[in-house]
Amino acid sequence: MNVGHRHYRTIWPREGWVVEIIDQRLLPHRFEILQLKTLEDAAIAIRDMAVRGAPLIGAAAAYGMALATVTDASDAGLRRAGEALIATRPTAVNLRWAVERMQALLISVDSSARRDAAWKEAARIAEEDVAICSAIGDHGLALIEAAAAGKEPGEPVQILTHCNAGWLATVDWGTATAPIYKAHAKGIALHVWVDETRPRNQGAALTAWELSQHGVDCTLIADNAGGHLMQRGLVDLCIVGTDRTTAQGDVCNKIGTYLKALAAKDNDVPFYVALPSPTIDWRLQDGMDIPIEQRSPDEVLFMQGRDEAGRVGRFAIAPDNVRARNDAFDVTPARLISGLITERGVLAADAAALKAAFPDQA
Amino acid sequence: MNVGHRHYRTIWPREGWVVEIIDQRLLPHRFEILQLKTLEDAAIAIRDMAVRGAPLIGAAAAYGMALATVTDASDAGLRRAGEALIATRPTAVNLRWAVERMQALLISVDSSARRDAAWKEAARIAEEDVAICSAIGDHGLALIEAAAAGKEPGEPVQILTHCNAGWLATVDWGTATAPIYKAHAKGIALHVWVDETRPRNQGAALTAWELSQHGVDCTLIADNAGGHLMQRGLVDLCIVGTDRTTAQGDVCNKIGTYLKALAAKDNDVPFYVALPSPTIDWRLQDGMDIPIEQRSPDEVLFMQGRDEAGRVGRFAIAPDNVRARNDAFDVTPARLISGLITERGVLAADAAALKAAFPDQA
Repeated sequence: MNVGHRHYRTIWPREGWVVEIIDQRLLPHRFEILQLKTLEDAAIAIRDMAVRGAPLIGAAAAYGMALATVTDASDAGLRRAGEALIATRPTAVNLRWAVERMQALLISVDSSARRDAAWKEAARIAEEDVAICSAIGDHGLALIEAAAAGKEPGEPVQILTHCNAGWLATVDWGTATAPIYKAHAKGIALHVWVDETRPRNQGAALTAWELSQHGVDCTLIADNAGGHLMQRGLVDLCIVGTDRTTAQGDVCNKIGTYLKALAAKDNDVPFYVALPSPTIDWRLQDGMDIPIEQRSPDEVLFMQGRDEAGRVGRFAIAPDNVRARNDAFDVTPARLISGLITERGVLAADAAALKAAFPDQA
Repeated sequence: MNVGHRHYRTIWPREGWVVEIIDQRLLPHRFEILQLKTLEDAAIAIRDMAVRGAPLIGAAAAYGMALATVTDASDAGLRRAGEALIATRPTAVNLRWAVERMQALLISVDSSARRDAAWKEAARIAEEDVAICSAIGDHGLALIEAAAAGKEPGEPVQILTHCNAGWLATVDWGTATAPIYKAHAKGIALHVWVDETRPRNQGAALTAWELSQHGVDCTLIADNAGGHLMQRGLVDLCIVGTDRTTAQGDVCNKIGTYLKALAAKDNDVPFYVALPSPTIDWRLQDGMDIPIEQRSPDEVLFMQGRDEAGRVGRFAIAPDNVRARNDAFDVTPARLISGLITERGVLAADAAALKAAFPDQA
């Protein structure tokens, strides 16, 4: 999507076996491009969240495998590269999926041909993600059009989103944002409530930034505010992303998603989850079986911000010696979800609907 | 309660018609005492939230009236002082209550005796608040004792609280924290999950600070985390405060309270609201009729923190030119509330129970 009227993706290859990414750790304060030249660069970029979001992590892992083949395309090298990448983020099912797909392909190719095959396959994974997100956008667009049909002319459709399931979390379009960008392109009046999404502030730092850069009207709110806005009739629908979806439609997404789903249910606001099918974990039924990543308490105790002199730094927001706990995700049970927006259509959040839509995967 | 092993209240009179308060805007980074010498000092302290919390605002307003009598104890002066104080915080029912009580008393007294009567009455209002909070603590203690009875020896009762309904929000003891301090004093093992409470961060800045200073075990969490902790069985009960309670038991409290009440309901976790009866607005039934204060968007866009050099300042956490909305409160309907912890006992959140307990007020 657009940054300052110029189109970007989040990850792209360059001449000379180099990959470039937008360094998302610096947003929204600085827009910088980072070069990845080795497997280690890619692993660090994933681990330190210079790239984040399930689909983008998948693409970055694929390019990480491609980078690995430049120096070591042996079977052992592919195995070690995959292990190094998978170790960076335990919850990310896309990461494992991309690594295993790259390994399965490359192992079947003569080692002298692996480098070229790897770069081609990583590019294909990226293109597939763009196509999937675009299809999610087309299916989700119908939901926004339906909401718009119930509005007075010019009155915007009010959409609430949590965290960043935007184009910054994918290669392009985003998942939760894809229907929004498609509706915006069609000229439908809309307005997005952007949850700040503590403790890492992906909503404030990334979603508000990308929507604004692309020209979509949005307002930043504290995570605490969404329920109140729904009570007051100020939200027409919620669309969020997911890190992992189970075969029965339970959704593991950024911490706090569950609270918004409860509020949506309590106020009869439709609650949609947008997801590319690679984030479905067909081996799992009950979302409560998903292990939840615990991240550093420092993410709760400190924040990144820009001081009045324009310097970006880290600030303590709690008393010294106070303990914090930082669960990165929570589970929204399928019973709270109005529909799953996938690349094959909007599905009921249940095992039968998922299996019917993805008989080739389920 | 204790700060560094020394007992403090949040507001106290001094020789020479001066009032001292803890300047809560500087917490948790600095502990400083602020002197109020005029009505204007008191109004500014309330408006700028150097004092905050319904009961403390009431006490501060009473002392504000007392300060006003030092220079102008006329009927017109009392009226003007009341208007100036009430204008500072539109939602605070305690503020109006304290002002009207002071005015009603003083108007009946000869103007030459008003100054002494006003300071005596303000002190009485403060003492009554301490007595009310202590009684809330005694009644709520029984709930914690009951939870403790179901625990293995040494296993702590896990309590979640939102915002700061601590002793810093009252004159002493607090409302939501009063049962916690009473249980702590009795040696009951307990642990408090402290919601950060964006956007003003009263949980991180005040509740975590006051619990830690008094020696109560606590952990700071993002506002997004409470639902997840309840899903995982890590919360035995919630206790929050309230800014205003209606005659049917709906509760208007800090934004985000409603979300925690929904999560508590969904997970069968008891959800209690602690309140001194002066925060009951007997004229209102439906909480949705309460006007919600909208505060500055800057509270969402900027945060206060301490940089690595120890300087306390304001820093931007969102992109430039992004809009924000800042509703300060939300409404938790009575149906989500397990009980109201009042100075006259733990009551069902309904009109009949409230009226039966407060026949003199209802």
